[in-house]
Amino acid sequence: MNYKMIGRFLAQIVTIEALFLLPPLCISLVGGEQNAVRGFLLALAVMAAAAGLLFALCRGGGGRLFGAKEGLVCVSVGWFFLSLLGALPFWFSREIPRFVDAFFETVSGFTTTGSSILPAVEQLSRGILFWRSFTHWIGGMGVLVFLLAVTPSSKNGSGFTMHLLRAESPGPDVGKLVPQIRKTATILYLIYIGLTILNIFFLLVGGMPLFDALCTAFGTAGTGGFGIKNDSMASYSPYLQNVCTVFMALFGVNFSCYYLLLVGGVKNVLKDEELRLYVGIILVTILLITWDIRGMYASLSEALHHAAFQVSSIITTTGFATTDFGLWPAFSRSILLGLMVVGACAGSTGGGLKCARVLLLFKSLRRNIHKVLHPQKVQAVRINGKVANESVLENTNAYLAAYIIIVVLSTIAISLDSYDITTNLSAVLSCFNNIGPGLEAVGPLYNFGGFSDISKLVLSLDMLAGRLEIFPILILFSRSTWFRK
Amino acid sequence: MNYKMIGRFLAQIVTIEALFLLPPLCISLVGGEQNAVRGFLLALAVMAAAAGLLFALCRGGGGRLFGAKEGLVCVSVGWFFLSLLGALPFWFSREIPRFVDAFFETVSGFTTTGSSILPAVEQLSRGILFWRSFTHWIGGMGVLVFLLAVTPSSKNGSGFTMHLLRAESPGPDVGKLVPQIRKTATILYLIYIGLTILNIFFLLVGGMPLFDALCTAFGTAGTGGFGIKNDSMASYSPYLQNVCTVFMALFGVNFSCYYLLLVGGVKNVLKDEELRLYVGIILVTILLITWDIRGMYASLSEALHHAAFQVSSIITTTGFATTDFGLWPAFSRSILLGLMVVGACAGSTGGGLKCARVLLLFKSLRRNIHKVLHPQKVQAVRINGKVANESVLENTNAYLAAYIIIVVLSTIAISLDSYDITTNLSAVLSCFNNIGPGLEAVGPLYNFGGFSDISKLVLSLDMLAGRLEIFPILILFSRSTWFRK
Repeated sequence: MNYKMIGRFLAQIVTIEALFLLPPLCISLVGGEQNAVRGFLLALAVMAAAAGLLFALCRGGGGRLFGAKEGLVCVSVGWFFLSLLGALPFWFSREIPRFVDAFFETVSGFTTTGSSILPAVEQLSRGILFWRSFTHWIGGMGVLVFLLAVTPSSKNGSGFTMHLLRAESPGPDVGKLVPQIRKTATILYLIYIGLTILNIFFLLVGGMPLFDALCTAFGTAGTGGFGIKNDSMASYSPYLQNVCTVFMALFGVNFSCYYLLLVGGVKNVLKDEELRLYVGIILVTILLITWDIRGMYASLSEALHHAAFQVSSIITTTGFATTDFGLWPAFSRSILLGLMVVGACAGSTGGGLKCARVLLLFKSLRRNIHKVLHPQKVQAVRINGKVANESVLENTNAYLAAYIIIVVLSTIAISLDSYDITTNLSAVLSCFNNIGPGLEAVGPLYNFGGFSDISKLVLSLDMLAGRLEIFPILILFSRSTWFRK
Repeated sequence: MNYKMIGRFLAQIVTIEALFLLPPLCISLVGGEQNAVRGFLLALAVMAAAAGLLFALCRGGGGRLFGAKEGLVCVSVGWFFLSLLGALPFWFSREIPRFVDAFFETVSGFTTTGSSILPAVEQLSRGILFWRSFTHWIGGMGVLVFLLAVTPSSKNGSGFTMHLLRAESPGPDVGKLVPQIRKTATILYLIYIGLTILNIFFLLVGGMPLFDALCTAFGTAGTGGFGIKNDSMASYSPYLQNVCTVFMALFGVNFSCYYLLLVGGVKNVLKDEELRLYVGIILVTILLITWDIRGMYASLSEALHHAAFQVSSIITTTGFATTDFGLWPAFSRSILLGLMVVGACAGSTGGGLKCARVLLLFKSLRRNIHKVLHPQKVQAVRINGKVANESVLENTNAYLAAYIIIVVLSTIAISLDSYDITTNLSAVLSCFNNIGPGLEAVGPLYNFGGFSDISKLVLSLDMLAGRLEIFPILILFSRSTWFRK
């Protein structure tokens, strides 16, 4: 294990995080929010010390091998560090008095989950609110991808950088858009920034104040879901809610589709099987839920409006809400629970299993049935006409197994608190799939503040495991990561 | 598709079912239960007519191929027929007035689920009660396996009979105990009968009346769970409850372990990895639950007694109860929910994912992590020192995918009834894993009578899919089963 290089990598991450702290610091300075300013400055001091120490301690060691193992450890330890230090402004400013809570909130932010321990957010200062929403935007596309995009190309081989990109980007298989990884990372970030600006523009057109528009766009772009109002999005105008509906769905699309759209035209994009599945699921579930909740709202179009917003919010694992869907009939709530598991497209900022994995599971299941019927025939699983690599299939299946094992064990672990089973299961599913709200006691109108410290740490780990797609976290628990055989 | 031979096979199944109706008919005749006698006789008449018609229509056709496809269709259609006709005595005797209810109850019986639509069972006649429990015993080891054991060896190749045995026996991989399939089936049935007799003996020693002992042993042997008392096993003495605890656990062990014990001695059996996992899970969960519920019972030993009974009942998917575990704390109930998913050993009469599959999933997950760390090394998954076949691994993964898809879709389907999500999810998990009771409105003190007809049919299909391990049911929905390409 090349510890020195991992250390240097961590120092770079901390440096970047410190830079990201400057905009909210400015907001607090302008607004004269003394506690927040103190919080940000103290956090910056700690970050500077940590980065300096890491740089000093970890000089040299560049000659040794830096492979898959180091890449995965960088990702998981990097995210853990990021969350630990990112929690400091909340804690130092005393706006979130307990460190466990601040850590949970920060993990929830960076992993774009959006689960909160705060009963009311409107009492927070604007600088802290901005930082809270900003973590979504930073975590959405991935911090290490950002690092790849902005740092000059290093001596490390493309194998290592590919591992980083693969470990941090959601989905079963990350395709390089262009031969150079760095350029791929840059293109992804440019699309991300472009879509975010477009989102802010449409929100401003609808009369939303600039600060609100920025925070809302950050939450939408990262498919995170932290709001700046106690009632999430319910008090905004229907136009603004519709803008969110559309942009949440857009940020749930595989970003390589946008790249293809820009360079290749619309035809190839429409043929994409994952995109079709994603759009199909959205349309069908909106119709089913609209039909189910038609009696609860004044008109059918209002029911459609709320159904569309909530479906778009849940399938992309954003977690904004315009209405308390905890009051909806069991049929609609079950569909939402199903959408939580499915999730958005691979290569988007959304969480969940990902539509691409669902597609792979269905197709490999169908192949298995065919195999029973025709044992002689060799059949391959095809996605978009191309034969899927067997190792991708195997990985998808292993992912599913790990998914179930982690969900079952986490649910049992947090059930030591005295919540009911629906609350516990939906809390775990919500955190693991990076959604935000769950059902019952962690429904859209409630928060995660009632869990014990241990449960909050379990749920934080679930959020990280979900965001990093399990394996980077799991290998931390593997003996052969740390010891030579 | 060789329809004629499938028809003849169905006729044989119906004939055997008619023979199995004779013991309960005798009980009703001796007890002078007129309605029940009429029900049994009418059912026998229908069965005779069906069998005769099938034999007459399906002569010939023996020359054509009879392969995997036909074997799987035989199993699934055979079980459907069995349940359809087995429901007739309940319906004709008017003891269960609606046919959908009678069908649900019979499917629940043959699949050894033990979910009931009856609010109270003590009002049923003894003949009907006997038939109800007897279906567990018949379904436990498998009707087609029985057929294989009793019919003279046919001209069909061992390929076909192997398919039958594999499709009906629970678990990822059925090993032949001895080279001849027929002899394997006979040995399995002899062990089954031997253990059942032993169970009856220990119940009689504890002072249980013969009729009760027979019915209880049938429910235990098939790991079914239909009781003959409204309060399941709660009113029996602690000794009798302990006998059940032990025998439920014994019937959840892979039957090949007993064969190995008889021919090879105890040493080989103790090395069996699945058995170790099974015993380990039982011991650990009993301790955890005892600790969790210690405050709810008079003494620690009483808590241990109830914990052991419920753990043994749930992990083997039997479903007997001595206490309302719906009142236990969320931690204990979550553990039970986890046990429902895990299930008993492969090759036993129990349901669930099976310990062998859990073992395979863990091991293939571990291999996947190693693969990420050491991409060059080729690693095989080993069970009991032997390399597991890759196709078994693939099948296990496909099974898991189908499992999740079916659970999610079924839960959404039955949520159109107005039960809460915990009830719906636990009802589906309970039926699919062939357990019996669920939580909340379908908890151990309640029943499935409140579901709509459509939900009852969905749950019936779940029970069949769970008992036959999904694939025989799934291939019925595959186009290439019915049409030639």
